Amino acid sequence: MLIDLGKRAKKASRTMATLGTTEKNNALLKVSDYLIANADMIIKANDIDIENAKANNMSESLLDRLKLTKQRFDDIAEGIRQVVSLEDPIGEVLSMKERPNGLLIGQKRVPIGVIGIIYESRPNVTVDAFSLCFKTGNAVVLRGGSDCINSNIALVKVIKEALVACDIDPDAINLIENTDREIAKQFMHLNQYIDLLIPRGGAGLIKTVVENATIPVIETGTGNCHIFVDEYADLDKALPIIKNAKLQRLGVCNACESLVIHKNIANKALPMIAKMLSDNDCEIRGDEAACKIDGSIVKATEEDFATEYLAKIISAKVVDSFDEAVAHINNYSTGHSEAIITENYSNAQKFLNEIDSACVYVNASTRFTDGFMFGFGAEIGISTQKLHARGPMGLLALTSTKYIIYGNGQIRE
Amino acid sequence: MLIDLGKRAKKASRTMATLGTTEKNNALLKVSDYLIANADMIIKANDIDIENAKANNMSESLLDRLKLTKQRFDDIAEGIRQVVSLEDPIGEVLSMKERPNGLLIGQKRVPIGVIGIIYESRPNVTVDAFSLCFKTGNAVVLRGGSDCINSNIALVKVIKEALVACDIDPDAINLIENTDREIAKQFMHLNQYIDLLIPRGGAGLIKTVVENATIPVIETGTGNCHIFVDEYADLDKALPIIKNAKLQRLGVCNACESLVIHKNIANKALPMIAKMLSDNDCEIRGDEAACKIDGSIVKATEEDFATEYLAKIISAKVVDSFDEAVAHINNYSTGHSEAIITENYSNAQKFLNEIDSACVYVNASTRFTDGFMFGFGAEIGISTQKLHARGPMGLLALTSTKYIIYGNGQIRE
Repeated sequence: MLIDLGKRAKKASRTMATLGTTEKNNALLKVSDYLIANADMIIKANDIDIENAKANNMSESLLDRLKLTKQRFDDIAEGIRQVVSLEDPIGEVLSMKERPNGLLIGQKRVPIGVIGIIYESRPNVTVDAFSLCFKTGNAVVLRGGSDCINSNIALVKVIKEALVACDIDPDAINLIENTDREIAKQFMHLNQYIDLLIPRGGAGLIKTVVENATIPVIETGTGNCHIFVDEYADLDKALPIIKNAKLQRLGVCNACESLVIHKNIANKALPMIAKMLSDNDCEIRGDEAACKIDGSIVKATEEDFATEYLAKIISAKVVDSFDEAVAHINNYSTGHSEAIITENYSNAQKFLNEIDSACVYVNASTRFTDGFMFGFGAEIGISTQKLHARGPMGLLALTSTKYIIYGNGQIRE
Repeated sequence: MLIDLGKRAKKASRTMATLGTTEKNNALLKVSDYLIANADMIIKANDIDIENAKANNMSESLLDRLKLTKQRFDDIAEGIRQVVSLEDPIGEVLSMKERPNGLLIGQKRVPIGVIGIIYESRPNVTVDAFSLCFKTGNAVVLRGGSDCINSNIALVKVIKEALVACDIDPDAINLIENTDREIAKQFMHLNQYIDLLIPRGGAGLIKTVVENATIPVIETGTGNCHIFVDEYADLDKALPIIKNAKLQRLGVCNACESLVIHKNIANKALPMIAKMLSDNDCEIRGDEAACKIDGSIVKATEEDFATEYLAKIISAKVVDSFDEAVAHINNYSTGHSEAIITENYSNAQKFLNEIDSACVYVNASTRFTDGFMFGFGAEIGISTQKLHARGPMGLLALTSTKYIIYGNGQIRE
């Protein structure tokens, strides 16, 4: 069954690669119209998922992510229209040069082929992932969480109908309806049909995919993001940035989870930071030096420095030097987003050079790591690995290239 | 032991990322000098490998790849000097834009970090891989074949000495001296320390790495390359190109392994091709239609069409249409290099668009798929996957990017 689905997706990807931008945009608009027109039916399917989830004691925050409302439908449809408005990267010839033997060698941007997405119970991901993959000429195979299965079946059914109405192969989108874990593992080994696997979800899901997949994976998401308050920090910038990065939204991967503070500013800065955070009900877990400076700071364990809390908790470490700060961050960071607060030019440049993360900031909140904020329009995730794509992934991350070579009878000597 | 080695490599990679181009080039020249100066010692170590290999009845062709001579040393040293002459891609800022909120967001080219290379018994790969990784600021961890272990130990020792003489961390290169398969498997799971794994060798080695590694892998090499003789082919081009692509060098991944011939030209073309190939002792294994046209063609099995012979054998299939040719090639190809021979403009363009391979040629030999031939200077391999790098991989394939963001107190609304 899974192999048959893979074959159909691969077949669809061949024709999708030849679709023009106008055809793709028209189809996306049709999908948007069909989703709005069928909102009641899809919301009914979603109601079943919500009831089942409540029966399974799903937490309020997860229930909220699972729930589809008329308002969310409008957002989803608006999301599709935004993807329509983005420039189509497919077909661009990045370079073309004539070699001494007369061969004309060009590098052309092409779709990847078939993209697999493994995600948790967020029905909006179903539509987002489809629209980004479709715009870049890729077929998509979705494997969503079991909690979301009725919503996903309804969404994919409607999207397929819209594609058929546009005379496009409905295998451009497929859903793996069997949500067994064993099936997910088989899916991760379909190298012959799936070109790329993107996991979207919590750290556990991502780890499972990285450890089990033989298909190339782009690792996304986990963010143990740091802010380093340098000895030359302007605290009028540091405090609002820390507040924003930690508290503006708790459950996101670009939230700040760990503070690093230079000893020469710690006596002044830490009490101010501690007060600001405790005024916002945020707990600080610090090393010995931090605890000595401010009595409201509780003692951190080694594990704290490696933890992505996604909650009103932050770790804090006092360092003796700039180099110690860099070493600490490179050691504990997940390579997502880190910021320095400093007015010192050389330290700013050194931090940008030496921190080994996808996004490195000077005097700004880590919360900006996001496809919309970076001006990419929409994102399929944030890559924390170094291959293919690093940082927020827009449409370009869903493309590959091929060499096209125009000859005139050339043979190799 | 392996974890310790990974830690040291990661540590070295941090300082290597900050080396300037001049420092890197000077160190590479020093390595080249040291290798030449220590050639006798290294050749003695190689002699032991050669004796052991003979005792193990290694084939002549593999013995030839294993053997180091004074001439090969000159070639290796010349290879390093060529890498020195290549432009250093590290540090280039690919784009930098100011966002409406004043954030200045740039994308900068950086090293990948630590690159693992798993390869067979070719000591020249030891030096090639090091010089390409070093030039791009990456630490390298090598795991060569057991047949080559004495040569590799000697080579790596000398390279480390040259690095120390330049005040560069010798952990820029490390060799896994234990050649147990179990150790190789552990190596493939060192995600914390190794950022990328590149297997270089035969199909079996590559499959093992793809199936076992949890580290991101770039799949290289296997080439079941096709040439399609279109009904509009100029046979004066077709014959020399087929001869060159099949016979100029047999054991290479860009050699042609399969012919596809349009039925409207098959009666004329096949006997000419068959004669040319049999004059060169090359066997043709064809489908029923091909066998009917030329009695010298032997019957092919289904498996033949999927086989990378690397020998004087080629498969041949007669197709009824252009579309059947494209479907056949996309089905059996390994996504490496394919060529069409045609004088028809539309068929040439359609072939370039519809064939899903790293390199697609019109009227030229597939043998050009090679970093030197493409003008990249040197290559670390030829990628047949679609992520990160596709086709011949030069220095750029060994780089990543990071976003550097200059702020002035910005927080997210």
